[in-house]
Amino acid sequence: MEFSISKMKEVIGTQTDKRVSREATEELSKDLEQRGREITEEAVKIAESKGRVTVRAEDIREALR
Amino acid sequence: MEFSISKMKEVIGTQTDKRVSREATEELSKDLEQRGREITEEAVKIAESKGRVTVRAEDIREALR
Repeated sequence: MEFSISKMKEVIGTQTDKRVSREATEELSKDLEQRGREITEEAVKIAESKGRVTVRAEDIREALR
Repeated sequence: MEFSISKMKEVIGTQTDKRVSREATEELSKDLEQRGREITEEAVKIAESKGRVTVRAEDIREALR
């Protein structure tokens, strides 16, 4: 798992005082990793289509649209 | 920012050998945090609707549907 339990608990902790099982934390982490990979893949294509060797914030924003 | 640059680089690094600007990394991190919060919020509502005090993996999965 890429995102640590403690980091996930920080994100979750801003939204609730409830208990969150470790499995739930892992499930959320898996989803966020997957989304991160998909957005990156799209942003890389956008940067390449513009002939750039560096992925910029604007590529991420465009990928999110 | 919740997710560290180094963790984000791990996620990004599986998808590309290209250079990724720090701002791009931060932009992606912000999006993932936001999504993490939204999913958590929804999962908490689902757990509450079932009278549970603990958010389980099944609540996260239901929130993702």
